[in-house]
Amino acid sequence: MSTVEELAKQAQSAALQLARVASEVKNRALQEMAKALQDNVSDILAANQKDLEFAEKENIPGPLVARLALDEQKVLDMAKGILSVAGLPDPVGQKQGTMELDDGLVLSRVSCPIGVIGAIFESRPDAVPQISSLCLKSGNAVILKGGVEAQNSNRVIVKLLREALDKVSEIPPASIQLIETRAEVVEMLKQDATINLVVPRGSNAFVKFVQDNTRIPVLGHSEGLCHVYIDEDADTKKAVAIALDSKLQYPAACNAMETLLVHSGIAPKILPDLMTEFREKGVELVGDLKSCSLIPDLKRATDEDWDTEYNDLKLSIKVVESIGESIEHINQHGSGHTDTIVTNDKDRGERFLNEIDSACVMWNASTRFADGFRFGLGAEIGISTNKTHARGPVGLEGLVIYKYKLVGSGQTVAEYSGKNGKEFKHRPIEEDA
Amino acid sequence: MSTVEELAKQAQSAALQLARVASEVKNRALQEMAKALQDNVSDILAANQKDLEFAEKENIPGPLVARLALDEQKVLDMAKGILSVAGLPDPVGQKQGTMELDDGLVLSRVSCPIGVIGAIFESRPDAVPQISSLCLKSGNAVILKGGVEAQNSNRVIVKLLREALDKVSEIPPASIQLIETRAEVVEMLKQDATINLVVPRGSNAFVKFVQDNTRIPVLGHSEGLCHVYIDEDADTKKAVAIALDSKLQYPAACNAMETLLVHSGIAPKILPDLMTEFREKGVELVGDLKSCSLIPDLKRATDEDWDTEYNDLKLSIKVVESIGESIEHINQHGSGHTDTIVTNDKDRGERFLNEIDSACVMWNASTRFADGFRFGLGAEIGISTNKTHARGPVGLEGLVIYKYKLVGSGQTVAEYSGKNGKEFKHRPIEEDA
Repeated sequence: MSTVEELAKQAQSAALQLARVASEVKNRALQEMAKALQDNVSDILAANQKDLEFAEKENIPGPLVARLALDEQKVLDMAKGILSVAGLPDPVGQKQGTMELDDGLVLSRVSCPIGVIGAIFESRPDAVPQISSLCLKSGNAVILKGGVEAQNSNRVIVKLLREALDKVSEIPPASIQLIETRAEVVEMLKQDATINLVVPRGSNAFVKFVQDNTRIPVLGHSEGLCHVYIDEDADTKKAVAIALDSKLQYPAACNAMETLLVHSGIAPKILPDLMTEFREKGVELVGDLKSCSLIPDLKRATDEDWDTEYNDLKLSIKVVESIGESIEHINQHGSGHTDTIVTNDKDRGERFLNEIDSACVMWNASTRFADGFRFGLGAEIGISTNKTHARGPVGLEGLVIYKYKLVGSGQTVAEYSGKNGKEFKHRPIEEDA
Repeated sequence: MSTVEELAKQAQSAALQLARVASEVKNRALQEMAKALQDNVSDILAANQKDLEFAEKENIPGPLVARLALDEQKVLDMAKGILSVAGLPDPVGQKQGTMELDDGLVLSRVSCPIGVIGAIFESRPDAVPQISSLCLKSGNAVILKGGVEAQNSNRVIVKLLREALDKVSEIPPASIQLIETRAEVVEMLKQDATINLVVPRGSNAFVKFVQDNTRIPVLGHSEGLCHVYIDEDADTKKAVAIALDSKLQYPAACNAMETLLVHSGIAPKILPDLMTEFREKGVELVGDLKSCSLIPDLKRATDEDWDTEYNDLKLSIKVVESIGESIEHINQHGSGHTDTIVTNDKDRGERFLNEIDSACVMWNASTRFADGFRFGLGAEIGISTNKTHARGPVGLEGLVIYKYKLVGSGQTVAEYSGKNGKEFKHRPIEEDA
């Protein structure tokens, strides 16, 4: 048995225990976890220092180093994040309906943890307390794999979190596990007998690698190719603000705009000035034939541009003749992540919301709102473009499933079978949660 | 582009149309589908006759032929089944919560179809109208693959259903597609760009083959290894009735009992007579050391028996010393499908329901109740032992996902960022559905 297989089995048995731990006990453990970080800031910073030295030696790029670097405030923020998860409602044990199948035969559906979550992420050490606290709160064991750049930081943080769990006797410390090498990840992806869900966070290529190498369900998005469509009846000021925010507020985010669609009826009025603004902000622009005819020095977009997530200061622009053309373009070229329409026309606004097949569809708001915190989920394990289980920003609710509980008084199915079989009542029961 | 790839693209574009069709239009299409079967019984029976002749020539086993054979009543029952799906509430467009993120910025979550479903099943031709009607009602396009034994029947039924769709102009006939060969199935499993969910029904080996050969999420169960645990405080009469029903009411069903666990405190009283009853019904019995000591001529179970789904008249028996031992055995050897406890003790009943990690957990009721119809879901696409998306008997609700709709009035994320950024309100709004 490989080490990872062994470790996944330990996580599975921890998960079975964790599934029945009361909310207040889980919250006590989360408080201990927060305290462990608050009380050991210097240990964490010392480990982080080693990671930073390694990063410098290895010439790791600046933005990555920035995400890696911790200071006292960032560590205290991690602790605060854990406490905010403690403050969320427990997603486990929620009744999702009760039905009397017959006299003395009552069926209920109740939320419960998924089991063991495999979480793979990159350089940010703050992902460790964030993912660990979400998994613990939802009663799941977690196997974490962070980036090699952050391994000293991650090791210390996981050690502190496990020591914190040790202080709460009902919580098995094996609820939080850490693996470190790429070989271990490959091994982990094989553990479909014990691991129930994999949550990869990272580059598109990485998420695809995970999807291609496991039978375990994967929660995540491999792409975020988001659109803004400016309708002919758009308010010009709002359209400009939303387009700029969607592209520029954080261009590397998965919910940033990659393609701008503009109705031909408003394009001559809105595009020239908007393009000037984008250019002033350093955005490289490419466009279709029609937008090129409106903006003299615009470079022509290639077919590939419509399918490209730039994640950077680049934008493709297309002029369309109708909302139908924009919907068709988005459903064909989008990644089902987030798309927005700017319009004052109620029918077209609603049509866009109904006909665009994306996790988040918006009307007169920036694509950048697609986010667990902004959506009020409290915290986010990731954003999903899946069409099953969970879609869009995924909070604690995406980390639970349900079970059916049937309480009878000795009934058999034979009694309900055949010509003279009893009939089911199937009477829904209203209950206080 | 292969034929199947082309066909899956047609299904995808049909699904986009279907997603926005009103309930009454879908119900009208379902009524046309039912009528098409009612009006063409003789065509269906003629095609079925060809299948039966083929089955005879190929020496296809008796039980398979029995499932294949249609008569007028069975065809009329198919039509009735379609009409009953028409009578179910539309699972699409259900509001799942609304929240005011800020003034004039309102988020709602609404159920919507998954997209394209691939459904693979064996000889029963009645699976065609059943699966087609569930998919249509939930706004999904479906690609069907039935068994080769039923191909003439399936072809005629699909042709009639598609002709029925033709009569309702809003519904694209490409919403229901049929493929026929094993090679096409392999090709279909590659279409993860267009097919969103695969629902295989058939043998364990077949479901595993599907899981191993696709990146598309799979809804199903590969095993049904169900347990009955008779606690020391069980009512003897109820325990005997539940054990017999769980094993014998339909031994080939996935929710039939495979292993009986009995507390040592009640085993001497209950086991000898119960074993006699099982033997009289032709059930082959194997047991652990302790049960062998109670029943003189009982054959010893091997380690393998505890992990075997017999799906037949065979049963393994184990005597346990505590409910804890029974829970541990079930969580280790079970398949997470359905398990039941027989006890008069409230604490142990509840403990079993909470600690057994299975889709359906029962207390004083036969495992055979685990079924979509009996659970009041109206109709069932299958039973899932997945830990994500849908678990247990899956009705229409398992064929939908949701999207987030955000309606704003020009807001940007920049307004809510930084030191002087606006705060979100995150105020849940109660709404009439």
